[in-house]
Amino acid sequence: MSQYMARLGELRSLPRGRGPRSGRDALPQQQRPRLKFGTGRRPRRVAMLSVHTSPLHQPGTGDAGGMNVYIVELAKQLAAHGTEVEIFTRATTASLPGSVELAPGVLVRHIDAGPYEGLAKEELPAQLCAFTHGVMQAWAGHRPGHYDLVHSHYWLSGHVGWLAAQRWGVPLVNAMHTMAKVKNAALAEGDSPEPAARVIGETQIVRAADRLIANTAEEADELVRHYEADPSRTAVVHPGVNLERFCPADGRAAARARLGLPQDALIPLFAGRIQPLKAPDILLRAVALLVAEDPSLRGRLLVPVVGGPSGSGLAKPERLHKLAARLGISDVVRFRPPVDQEELADWYRAASVLVMPSYSESFGLVAVEAQACGTPVIAAAVGGLPVAVRDGVSGFLVDGHEPRAYAEALRRFVTDEPYGPAERMGEAAARHAAEFGWDAAAAGTLQVYADAMHDRRRRLRSAHG
Amino acid sequence: MSQYMARLGELRSLPRGRGPRSGRDALPQQQRPRLKFGTGRRPRRVAMLSVHTSPLHQPGTGDAGGMNVYIVELAKQLAAHGTEVEIFTRATTASLPGSVELAPGVLVRHIDAGPYEGLAKEELPAQLCAFTHGVMQAWAGHRPGHYDLVHSHYWLSGHVGWLAAQRWGVPLVNAMHTMAKVKNAALAEGDSPEPAARVIGETQIVRAADRLIANTAEEADELVRHYEADPSRTAVVHPGVNLERFCPADGRAAARARLGLPQDALIPLFAGRIQPLKAPDILLRAVALLVAEDPSLRGRLLVPVVGGPSGSGLAKPERLHKLAARLGISDVVRFRPPVDQEELADWYRAASVLVMPSYSESFGLVAVEAQACGTPVIAAAVGGLPVAVRDGVSGFLVDGHEPRAYAEALRRFVTDEPYGPAERMGEAAARHAAEFGWDAAAAGTLQVYADAMHDRRRRLRSAHG
Repeated sequence: MSQYMARLGELRSLPRGRGPRSGRDALPQQQRPRLKFGTGRRPRRVAMLSVHTSPLHQPGTGDAGGMNVYIVELAKQLAAHGTEVEIFTRATTASLPGSVELAPGVLVRHIDAGPYEGLAKEELPAQLCAFTHGVMQAWAGHRPGHYDLVHSHYWLSGHVGWLAAQRWGVPLVNAMHTMAKVKNAALAEGDSPEPAARVIGETQIVRAADRLIANTAEEADELVRHYEADPSRTAVVHPGVNLERFCPADGRAAARARLGLPQDALIPLFAGRIQPLKAPDILLRAVALLVAEDPSLRGRLLVPVVGGPSGSGLAKPERLHKLAARLGISDVVRFRPPVDQEELADWYRAASVLVMPSYSESFGLVAVEAQACGTPVIAAAVGGLPVAVRDGVSGFLVDGHEPRAYAEALRRFVTDEPYGPAERMGEAAARHAAEFGWDAAAAGTLQVYADAMHDRRRRLRSAHG
Repeated sequence: MSQYMARLGELRSLPRGRGPRSGRDALPQQQRPRLKFGTGRRPRRVAMLSVHTSPLHQPGTGDAGGMNVYIVELAKQLAAHGTEVEIFTRATTASLPGSVELAPGVLVRHIDAGPYEGLAKEELPAQLCAFTHGVMQAWAGHRPGHYDLVHSHYWLSGHVGWLAAQRWGVPLVNAMHTMAKVKNAALAEGDSPEPAARVIGETQIVRAADRLIANTAEEADELVRHYEADPSRTAVVHPGVNLERFCPADGRAAARARLGLPQDALIPLFAGRIQPLKAPDILLRAVALLVAEDPSLRGRLLVPVVGGPSGSGLAKPERLHKLAARLGISDVVRFRPPVDQEELADWYRAASVLVMPSYSESFGLVAVEAQACGTPVIAAAVGGLPVAVRDGVSGFLVDGHEPRAYAEALRRFVTDEPYGPAERMGEAAARHAAEFGWDAAAAGTLQVYADAMHDRRRRLRSAHG
């Protein structure tokens, strides 16, 4: 038996259907991600493409944001589990070295494509050939088969990945992160729509990629609905949560002391942007019902609303204050402007329970962060929240948006016990949230890689009879 | 001696420095283009790239214009001389076949890149990776070495060519045709400048290409001045003139008869856009001087001005009429609106001499067309005109723009002889213009190809010690 056939034999004996399932179907499986790193052949080395934003840039500046954190954390985890990652990004200053080791097994390669400064994101499409040329030059020094797979982020990188994957004969895995059609469908008044060139570009990548990674089931669904993505090639891998930052640390009592909050109060927390979509008003109405039924609660209840007005909430920022006054609970509600990540973790720890009555959530990161800090969650059963919260274990899911239903869920946390439901569910919540660490995201991603490589080999095999 | 070394030995024995020289230096050589097709190794097959406009489209519609004619005529001539050409262009309707034989040895390949309709030229940069992908797919079915050279037209194709040449290990020859910096430097008021993305894209191609082909010495100069092109890699190859359309045909008398012009008149013709740059006023002033000195000329002089107002001439279209009236020569000047190419050839044939007092001409196509019709030319010694006109042989070159100097040149054509200076110089003019046929353009292009291939082999040789 030739080596080739031996390899094929090996492939045939692979267990099937163990990867994260696609789109909506992925939910039950994702609820308990397998932390295995060995189903199917994994790539030894991945070429990761991030044309328009560098993993070395500070998130929150310029074009750098959540995607940068995503790429850095994912690459580190992949490398830690034996898959090397080389991240190609555009050089934005002359002083950058050709390559930088970001972590063991993670190399950032700077590609010359266009001027170092003053190149707007809108001008990048014209630089994709130049970028591809640079990627090919970097690759030319290596043996054939240096990269086993291309993983591109955002549609611009997807186009480079399309050519690179073709050139190297390896699978292309793309993560869109955001999509023009989705953005344009929910365009705020006065916003300019994303250009046709981007819509076309995204459509091409959806067709060309061997696998699409969606951050959430919602996003997978959008890929299928808006771009006619093949559901069998669309996988959901949740981005990870930083479990080092969001952890129980020294516990609830210490966090309350740091924030100057009463130790014995029932503290249902709202954390997030103040806008109708997130529905903080439902929490206030539920609290008002609770207080009306049991006036004794007023003295030992505190409702922090942490976050600033955003989106359509910007139009009437005082609306929520007025509502609290009208409901007669201004004395128990505390409005706090947005806080940094470190203080946010303390607010999560200090709360008895996080309340998320949202009308829509794609993933529900805040719910996972709070649970990771040891705090249970009451959440609307929408979007990704049924995945983020284990109903009855790490918190409660509420169907619909009736304040009464939220009041009933809240009442379960009213207790005089020193170790009550908040504490018990909080421990389960921390355990549950641990599944959403970056190692889980890396495991899910590796499974997608393995599936893409497997499919490609199978296609190759049928092409060879 | 290995086959490789034998090939190198063969290369060493090539005559050097016989190609068209670069930039301004090219002028003396270009004045008498060599009609040889065999200096250096020629490519067997060229991949010609025309992303944004198809050689199958009708010039004068949409984005199709002179460049389309250029590509079609050049490709036909190259194929006629043994170099096959495959032209890659973007498919703009669903009904197009994958490939079309345009002429023996000339194949047009339609590449899927973006939607068939409604894709603006401004959106094409985002489609260059898709186009490249299609080119690579078309190529994948062939043996390695299928194409010996890539010839790209316009900067968009240049970027695709950059990747294709890298992939195939062959030279890249680019023809810019128009340049953003040149366009922006002479921007008419209210015009929007070409975007930075194009300037950057052009700069990259100037650096990346093995050879740049400029249509005129002027253009070569602009490449060097504006884009820091390496003069030794910049060659001038004049586009050809259609010698089948522009030829003496049945001669001057027949043409005058067809146009209803007097057989025995002295007819100095102005043909071109009526704008200050082209200086038709200088011809009128010269004619006025001539008539003032010899009033008997008035009865046997006719000055046709064929063309419409254009550019800055549009502001005051009646200006030239008023000037003729003021000069007292309205009776000898005939204004004619622009005519089609066939009638234009008759005007050239009918004229005693074409007068081009232009302040600037990049190539001077009109001068060559008139000469091809057997008519001598009086031209200002600017731009490409000293190449287009052989002073004292096919016409006269005038330094500066003094009407008196043009009047003196015109007086040389005043004669009663039946076979006078107009006829004698006209025959020399037709012979001279024959050098500007498409076969000459193809010969010049093939020489550039051969030089590019030679250089690349020489570099390869030094890289191998």
